[in-house]
Amino acid sequence: MPELPDLTDTVRFDDAGLVPVVIQDWSTGEVLTLAYANDEALRRTRETGELHLWSRSRAELWHKGATSGNVQRVRDLRVDCDRDAVLALVEPAGPACHTGARTCFGAPDRPATADGSLGPAETARDRLAPHEVLPDLERVLAARRAAPPEGSYTAQLLADRAFAGAKVEEEAEEVFRAAREESDERVDSEAADVLYHLLALLRGRDRTLTDVVEVLRARRG
Amino acid sequence: MPELPDLTDTVRFDDAGLVPVVIQDWSTGEVLTLAYANDEALRRTRETGELHLWSRSRAELWHKGATSGNVQRVRDLRVDCDRDAVLALVEPAGPACHTGARTCFGAPDRPATADGSLGPAETARDRLAPHEVLPDLERVLAARRAAPPEGSYTAQLLADRAFAGAKVEEEAEEVFRAAREESDERVDSEAADVLYHLLALLRGRDRTLTDVVEVLRARRG
Repeated sequence: MPELPDLTDTVRFDDAGLVPVVIQDWSTGEVLTLAYANDEALRRTRETGELHLWSRSRAELWHKGATSGNVQRVRDLRVDCDRDAVLALVEPAGPACHTGARTCFGAPDRPATADGSLGPAETARDRLAPHEVLPDLERVLAARRAAPPEGSYTAQLLADRAFAGAKVEEEAEEVFRAAREESDERVDSEAADVLYHLLALLRGRDRTLTDVVEVLRARRG
Repeated sequence: MPELPDLTDTVRFDDAGLVPVVIQDWSTGEVLTLAYANDEALRRTRETGELHLWSRSRAELWHKGATSGNVQRVRDLRVDCDRDAVLALVEPAGPACHTGARTCFGAPDRPATADGSLGPAETARDRLAPHEVLPDLERVLAARRAAPPEGSYTAQLLADRAFAGAKVEEEAEEVFRAAREESDERVDSEAADVLYHLLALLRGRDRTLTDVVEVLRARRG
């Protein structure tokens, strides 16, 4: 893993000696929290690999998750074009929010549910951004695998690799046919079937989309 | 599309009457910019559906993209747990950054290239977060489709639906076999092949991952 960059000389701190830090989930891209860092917090982050911030309310250095155990491993630090904001890409050990929600931007209108999904289905579905759909689906699959509901099609896919694999093959044939001779709507729908069954097949093997895209990243020319 | 929420009474503005706004790409999840809004900017955003901010350097209301044409259509506005930060999910009409880069967090160490990819291959590959891999791949596919390089395998897939479709089927069989009896590494690798060829098949039909996940969102229970 590349070393984290030393931003202490790059960043332009404000009059209070702080810089805003957008904290984003390395795997899913979810924005977890907006917080602030000073010079020392950036230095400690780089030294430890875990996110350190400055708590404006307590006016003290804040090792994120030190109390709750929900530390955040920092995979990358980036600075913006005018050097007065930082983007921290993190792997969180647990919920980012003090409310117990996965992200600070989930509450109050979209409270996180116990299984980590986005909240009441109607609200969640309507307001789910495209980039949130696959991570949300993966959380649903993980929840179904942990506690298979009676008669659930998804639970059946997760429990039976031969069934899931045969479905991936079948849907692959169908997306091929759709791409050759059917409408855009049919192409999208069949591609969605491929993706859904592929993610279920992967989850049945305890693999995730993140594992798969790591392969694509390594192949990138 | 749901109406944007009225945040003017919800948000806790700072002493200068401002709130930080994290601007995130609705489709890809990329963090584009960190900016600031006042009460009026939030109101104008809600009225027009396009992002309005407060420019701290010019001390004036700022209709993002009004000059460059790179306006940002706002799909959702969310507030954080302590109501002192806003997340704006936008569809940008062009580069978000005044440098011409796709995001303000791409420069200076990862300058955007002409085709919108993340910059020098080595740097980009090493520092690409998992959530950035598929959007990056889709940009590469779009660039190859617009200007097919001689002898490129990807260009061949994009030009020949029958070839791409047959590859999706073949890779689906292989991921099935891997899931049944091979190592995790083989499962990841074959799933990556399915994904890559599926995205190429889609791009050959001018469809994108965003089109496909919209189907998955609509199906969400």
